Amino acid sequence: MPLNKYIQDGDNQDLTDERFKATFDTDALGAVFHGGEDALKRVREIRDELTKRGHLFDALPAAHRTRAERMEDVSRKLKNLMENVSEFADFSNNLDMLAIIRDVMGIEGFPLALHNLMFVPTIQNQADDEQTLATLSEINRITGTNLSAIETTATYDKSTEEFIIHTPTTTATKWWPGGLGTSCTHVILVANLIIDSKNYGLHPFFVPIRDRNSYSQMSGVRVGDIGTKMGVNCVDNGFLAFDNYRIPRRNMLMKHSKVSKEGVYTAPSHPKVGYTTMLYMRSEMLTHQSYYLAMAMAISIRYSAVRRQGEIKPGTQEVQILDYQTQQYRLFPGLARCFAFVTAAATVRQMTESCIKELSHGNSDVLADLHALSCGLKAVVTHQSSQSIDQARQACGGHGYSDASYLPTLYTCSVGACTYEGENMVMLLQLSKYLMKAAAKAEAGAEMAPLVAYLAVSDPIENGDKFGKLLNHFEHIARHRVMHAYHQMIEEEKHGIERDYAFANHSVDWTKAARAHTKLFMARGFVKKVQEIQNEAVHDVLNTLAELYLSYELIEMSSDLTANGYLSETEVQTIRHQIYDCMRKIRPNAVSIVDSFDICDRELRSVLGRRDGHVYENLYKWAQMSPLNQKNLPHVEKYLKPMTSKL
Amino acid sequence: MPLNKYIQDGDNQDLTDERFKATFDTDALGAVFHGGEDALKRVREIRDELTKRGHLFDALPAAHRTRAERMEDVSRKLKNLMENVSEFADFSNNLDMLAIIRDVMGIEGFPLALHNLMFVPTIQNQADDEQTLATLSEINRITGTNLSAIETTATYDKSTEEFIIHTPTTTATKWWPGGLGTSCTHVILVANLIIDSKNYGLHPFFVPIRDRNSYSQMSGVRVGDIGTKMGVNCVDNGFLAFDNYRIPRRNMLMKHSKVSKEGVYTAPSHPKVGYTTMLYMRSEMLTHQSYYLAMAMAISIRYSAVRRQGEIKPGTQEVQILDYQTQQYRLFPGLARCFAFVTAAATVRQMTESCIKELSHGNSDVLADLHALSCGLKAVVTHQSSQSIDQARQACGGHGYSDASYLPTLYTCSVGACTYEGENMVMLLQLSKYLMKAAAKAEAGAEMAPLVAYLAVSDPIENGDKFGKLLNHFEHIARHRVMHAYHQMIEEEKHGIERDYAFANHSVDWTKAARAHTKLFMARGFVKKVQEIQNEAVHDVLNTLAELYLSYELIEMSSDLTANGYLSETEVQTIRHQIYDCMRKIRPNAVSIVDSFDICDRELRSVLGRRDGHVYENLYKWAQMSPLNQKNLPHVEKYLKPMTSKL
Repeated sequence: MPLNKYIQDGDNQDLTDERFKATFDTDALGAVFHGGEDALKRVREIRDELTKRGHLFDALPAAHRTRAERMEDVSRKLKNLMENVSEFADFSNNLDMLAIIRDVMGIEGFPLALHNLMFVPTIQNQADDEQTLATLSEINRITGTNLSAIETTATYDKSTEEFIIHTPTTTATKWWPGGLGTSCTHVILVANLIIDSKNYGLHPFFVPIRDRNSYSQMSGVRVGDIGTKMGVNCVDNGFLAFDNYRIPRRNMLMKHSKVSKEGVYTAPSHPKVGYTTMLYMRSEMLTHQSYYLAMAMAISIRYSAVRRQGEIKPGTQEVQILDYQTQQYRLFPGLARCFAFVTAAATVRQMTESCIKELSHGNSDVLADLHALSCGLKAVVTHQSSQSIDQARQACGGHGYSDASYLPTLYTCSVGACTYEGENMVMLLQLSKYLMKAAAKAEAGAEMAPLVAYLAVSDPIENGDKFGKLLNHFEHIARHRVMHAYHQMIEEEKHGIERDYAFANHSVDWTKAARAHTKLFMARGFVKKVQEIQNEAVHDVLNTLAELYLSYELIEMSSDLTANGYLSETEVQTIRHQIYDCMRKIRPNAVSIVDSFDICDRELRSVLGRRDGHVYENLYKWAQMSPLNQKNLPHVEKYLKPMTSKL
Repeated sequence: MPLNKYIQDGDNQDLTDERFKATFDTDALGAVFHGGEDALKRVREIRDELTKRGHLFDALPAAHRTRAERMEDVSRKLKNLMENVSEFADFSNNLDMLAIIRDVMGIEGFPLALHNLMFVPTIQNQADDEQTLATLSEINRITGTNLSAIETTATYDKSTEEFIIHTPTTTATKWWPGGLGTSCTHVILVANLIIDSKNYGLHPFFVPIRDRNSYSQMSGVRVGDIGTKMGVNCVDNGFLAFDNYRIPRRNMLMKHSKVSKEGVYTAPSHPKVGYTTMLYMRSEMLTHQSYYLAMAMAISIRYSAVRRQGEIKPGTQEVQILDYQTQQYRLFPGLARCFAFVTAAATVRQMTESCIKELSHGNSDVLADLHALSCGLKAVVTHQSSQSIDQARQACGGHGYSDASYLPTLYTCSVGACTYEGENMVMLLQLSKYLMKAAAKAEAGAEMAPLVAYLAVSDPIENGDKFGKLLNHFEHIARHRVMHAYHQMIEEEKHGIERDYAFANHSVDWTKAARAHTKLFMARGFVKKVQEIQNEAVHDVLNTLAELYLSYELIEMSSDLTANGYLSETEVQTIRHQIYDCMRKIRPNAVSIVDSFDICDRELRSVLGRRDGHVYENLYKWAQMSPLNQKNLPHVEKYLKPMTSKL
């Protein structure tokens, strides 16, 4: 049996030829990508179960439908799922839920996407026992979302034992939360708690916004859809504002802080408890991004093996476009990043879980380190992922621009994450402030946290093995950038500029330092992951991908390598040539690597990325379904015909 | 009267304050951007005329309509324009036409966009006199597009004096031409001419594909819409294939090549004549890209002046986000690029016009130089423009992701140009082949064309003035990259690798060389342009923008500056600090610079970029129009209500 498990009779011959070249077992690499054999097995079981339920899918691609039709589609599927999902899966299990959503819903969202992800856990974490009981027994009858409206106030009215929720200005209207647009009946609103004119800061409230039967908005609530966006248009992001809207006292979630009938406030015991949801969301985002990128790679690399264009030497045969060095340079660094991202995601998830455990014992030592790291990873991964996806899209030429490729959807969904859950530049500046403190400690010879210990050491004279050398270069760059930004800032302070302004005056350099710090963490993690792999053939493939990854990211920052004579131009050239050498090694395995991601056609939603490689006849079938191929189109009948026949 | 001419009563105060800071006359800078005072005046005249014709515009933003509704919209406007445009403008004049299309249609296209731009000129250039007369008299009764289908054959059948048009395979189906989808009745098809089994290469044919009255496709023709794309969805890009479809002999356009009744072929006198249309199209693309980028800058910079968020020092006032160095770094290099691009576009247009004149005298000396340059410019400008637009979009935070900002549309339209009219990587490799020949000449001491003369000289010892020094660095980098790629290739040839393969093995390095060559051309052009400006205040502003532009582009390539000790780290730091210094100088003029682009709100189509700065109340109005804010939405009625009320 061939090592590549995705070969079938009747496939495009070029793809079959590629698959026979595999030097490793695709199931073994697939287990690495999916986080273990069990996880891969579970994803496949769920897929088989879904295959039996044809009513969960659509014959017509989403691209050929209007937004309203798509909303109808995903809502229909959601209802079907909710009624029957327990027959074959556990929706409260993250692995099951994501496998189902990816396959059935796709990546453009659905009306109640945040209900299980944020709404239910928040009730569980923030409501006191009595409230949990009361609310959870109802929870299947309501649909909710979470949102923080920091300019909205919840003023306690002792006389009626109610909170008065109010949004002071149009500018303060809350904008964007998913599900608000049309579908949520309740929200968990994080607003300013005011008692007797004193502001106690942000607290969570359970607020009905629509009647759960009629779905009409409550009086005193202004809520609606914010219209179309660059992507994720199956989510009904919405706006929300309150005009002196009243809710009962017990609608404040009181597990941590309490307000008594008399208006007496009790402070929470663990004020940092809100952080952990955010950390958890960010590690989830990393997983999603690596998945988006993996999909883009599967589409573009398969298509590049099927598509032949041009000759390297005139008069010889047209070559597969995957043979061009420029094409490999567009695709293979992204392929390597898939594994770097998925590794970083797993590491952060583990760190978060252990941090939460520590927190429950009252130990918040690692919280600041982890929070800073998660900021950097969020910014770097979302940016690089969307960049690599757009390169994959452009690598498919014109067809990459067609929605038939699904690549535009992957890009618009991926790039959105650069902004939501913490805008990337803000994220990098948060990490920068942490690095600024670490730099001061390094200067002072103080004890350093493990993640920043490298700031206090010098470049090693002995360079170590291949990966050791490359990692030393990452350390050098990160240290150089962090300490340089720090010293510039200190220099300004000496001239009487206050710290905050000195920081602001060098914030661009700080963001560059923050990126380098993050890339160091990712490079270390990837190398460690490779070293853990037992299967020799899989180890070899990942070893090459890691070498490509490290070399590529270093060359992207190579001005820091030649600066001050740290490396000679020849040494940098050697790293550059490692990229091209790795690409040559990856080339014969490229299709098999993306096969290993085990993303089925139904989930991939791409004509270009089909497993069987039969692109052109299916592109033709896809186009036939365009609504503009119907007869008697209004624009032709009303305007074009009169223009051309009358004159 | 204030120097900024865009101040009005009742505007957002922050914007008004910004405008009072202008150090230059916005009309004077506007004339530079638009290509002269006359051009700016004409654009304004046209706008005033359009304002009188309210029926040409829509109350409902395109984002709230389905694709079919948008097609209807633009078709209605097109019909109205065609009936009345001659009252106030000359549609055959490029300036008039573009001003009208930008204002009335927007940037997402319309069904017959290529008719006047390519179809009519091609008839004029390729048809012989008799054909021109016959066709042009009909041309207002037909609608057409141009397309090259290089696998399609036109075989001459002497017996009937017809050509038989045939597409051999599904894979050879022509895909993408604009207007094919639903609206063209005729195409100019560039296909292989076959006479007596001999292939004479590509020739143009005038081919009816739909009945001009019924719009149904001709028998033997398969034509239709290819579905939605990442952007430009008001263009009905289509597919086309022929099954032994017959057209009369005289439907071959015979100005240059001829086929007699008897099937005797006469070769053309000027075989390179087709190039000039392509050169012209490419210079047009540069203009469009600088305009897209200018729109994005106007939106994002105005919004950044209106939007306040965060404090530089905790406890002080929230600042305009335009005050953050990181925000300026995202926006101001793009602002400088607007002028670099528009200058490059004007230069190439002039060069193309003079080249066409030379060609008509039989002199094709500069054609190769100009063609190579246009390839590089097309690739660099479309890439940088789309990158800067996406940075501008992200700089607006969440609202940049909303279609209310118009930034997603600007991005998707702009990035499409990286692929159409010559895929960027292919473009860079075409320029590379030219540079390869130039490098060989430089090595051999042969005479060099002006655009590549720098390859044959050494780094100067005397550095010149500020701009002179920076331009020397550009030359150094371009020369270093080109000669390095060349020498690597020659080295391989010495080891017995054939030239074509040696080139392919170093193609990534060649593309980097091609980019550096192109950036040198653009930097030189921008400096030259600045030096020509008479108005002192405008000169000062452009001078700072040019310094920012040069410094920024150099820092983007700075690994080539420190390599081999060409510059010290301190010298590179000096260039980096020039960026930040220029940003500080530009800051107070930023809003006035984008005002100078003179893009009115109707054309800008952006709630965030409104001239008056009243963003939030209008965002709210915009959202109200979302179709998802109607009552009784199908997805709620059919699926959500039963889910939440039944349980």
